[in-house]
Amino acid sequence: MENYITEERANFLKHDYSQGFIEYCGLKALNSRWGSFESEVIIKKSHRQQDNFIHAGLIATMADHTAGYSAFTTVGEGFRILTIEFKINFFKPAYGSALKCYSKVVNKGKQIMVAESDVYDVRKGRENLTAKAIVTMMAVPEEKINNRSLHHV
Amino acid sequence: MENYITEERANFLKHDYSQGFIEYCGLKALNSRWGSFESEVIIKKSHRQQDNFIHAGLIATMADHTAGYSAFTTVGEGFRILTIEFKINFFKPAYGSALKCYSKVVNKGKQIMVAESDVYDVRKGRENLTAKAIVTMMAVPEEKINNRSLHHV
Amino acid sequence: MENYITEERANFLKHDYSQGFIEYCGLKALNSRWGSFESEVIIKKSHRQQDNFIHAGLIATMADHTAGYSAFTTVGEGFRILTIEFKINFFKPAYGSALKCYSKVVNKGKQIMVAESDVYDVRKGRENLTAKAIVTMMAVPEEKINNRSLHHV
Amino acid sequence: MENYITEERANFLKHDYSQGFIEYCGLKALNSRWGSFESEVIIKKSHRQQDNFIHAGLIATMADHTAGYSAFTTVGEGFRILTIEFKINFFKPAYGSALKCYSKVVNKGKQIMVAESDVYDVRKGRENLTAKAIVTMMAVPEEKINNRSLHHV
Repeated sequence: MENYITEERANFLKHDYSQGFIEYCGLKALNSRWGSFESEVIIKKSHRQQDNFIHAGLIATMADHTAGYSAFTTVGEGFRILTIEFKINFFKPAYGSALKCYSKVVNKGKQIMVAESDVYDVRKGRENLTAKAIVTMMAVPEEKINNRSLHHV
Repeated sequence: MENYITEERANFLKHDYSQGFIEYCGLKALNSRWGSFESEVIIKKSHRQQDNFIHAGLIATMADHTAGYSAFTTVGEGFRILTIEFKINFFKPAYGSALKCYSKVVNKGKQIMVAESDVYDVRKGRENLTAKAIVTMMAVPEEKINNRSLHHV
Repeated sequence: MENYITEERANFLKHDYSQGFIEYCGLKALNSRWGSFESEVIIKKSHRQQDNFIHAGLIATMADHTAGYSAFTTVGEGFRILTIEFKINFFKPAYGSALKCYSKVVNKGKQIMVAESDVYDVRKGRENLTAKAIVTMMAVPEEKINNRSLHHV
Repeated sequence: MENYITEERANFLKHDYSQGFIEYCGLKALNSRWGSFESEVIIKKSHRQQDNFIHAGLIATMADHTAGYSAFTTVGEGFRILTIEFKINFFKPAYGSALKCYSKVVNKGKQIMVAESDVYDVRKGRENLTAKAIVTMMAVPEEKINNRSLHHV
């Protein structure tokens, strides 16, 4: 799959990435190209769990949301992306100063899109693969979102 | 699997549930019995995503963390629980005033434990199933967590 | 979800269940109701793996196919079911004389359906839960299957 | 992860690959290196499903088993590999004359290993990605398999 998005669209998506729960969690978009998306979060105490590791829920949130925006780069402006399901493997507990996530679309169907997310634990500037997710999504026309007819996708 | 935890242990786990990222997200423990755990979160604007639905990442965080504490109810005090992987299906977008999560252990091996989490979207007091997760975890002796020898579980 | 299928439709689906790879593997339908389906396989040497356990691939095949037929019970005759993805956890190695699988639809959307399959290892007449799967499927109008326009579902 | 297996060990694993259910399904090993494994199956009528596509169960069996043998290449001769769980996404229905599977270990912990499998639908000599799986496994000392103490891994 090779294709292209305008710089304007890429900038829009990078800005659009951080709102609501994602802004609250401190996740920020880094780069965006057709079919791929990168993001980062600087780790604070409020991102950790009971053993002081970075919480799996934050890692999963990042993997899901960044996968979603990689899918956004491949659809027209009139489409929204909803996650149908995802699966994530955690390889080692993460405890670094930041996380980075690299997502890319691995299959683009008419409606169903699948992306992969690799999440890295950044320790002293070195990126260590900490988790890997595969995310199944659906592209939904915007008007279906607005009139809530999507309750039964 | 039938078994039992003391009221003291149940209260400890309910208190222990909300710290770090989980406290930051506003998740609270409700009930705890041997092999099961329930939790709740009152939804705020900071839990939503770009289309005003409750973010899948929050739902996944709740499903993972509550599953983890259902596993905690079945191990001795000297054990910690780490998530190996999880998978979550989202049935319908959630937009209610709260989420409730019910987790229960479905298989307890010597080291590997599997739990299921059902997450409900609470709308006008009615609970609607919004997502279902299956979570694979590992029970790790506390001393392995402390000396970080678990980097390669 | 409560509903109903005719005895004629149930019998058709039970007969339809065993063909091609499924017949080759020896899987047979047992019962069928709206939203659920049961199946069985008598274990032979050709179902085992290198350590003499029943092969995970056979268990996965049974979990996927029986889930698919549980979905078939909820759609009209003009629809076909395709698996988008599934995830399966294996709790303990299976080594009995038969496997039984119980599948039920847990969410029925307009297009996307999710079912769960519980697979039991039958040893001396006792059923032991050996694996649990969650299966995401799509209902596709038959004409789309025939003209192969579904290559990009 | 860089490492090495002897030609003798590689040949042993390639031979060992096809037995029981795998031999019955017609799957054959192609190549084997440290951390990776390739396999193939020539498609017959007995591999198909009700719509004449190659059955998802065969694809899943291949993805699981080949992932297992990629893990075998990284452990000593005294260890066996058991699948804890796997997840597989089907991108497009497969209908070619053969399937090829490429598996590689993506994380090797002390006990828990994770591998990915890419399955290709071979049509007129061209390989089309049809499915992608992620497989979580456990390396178990052989003596634990033999005395059945692994019933509760």
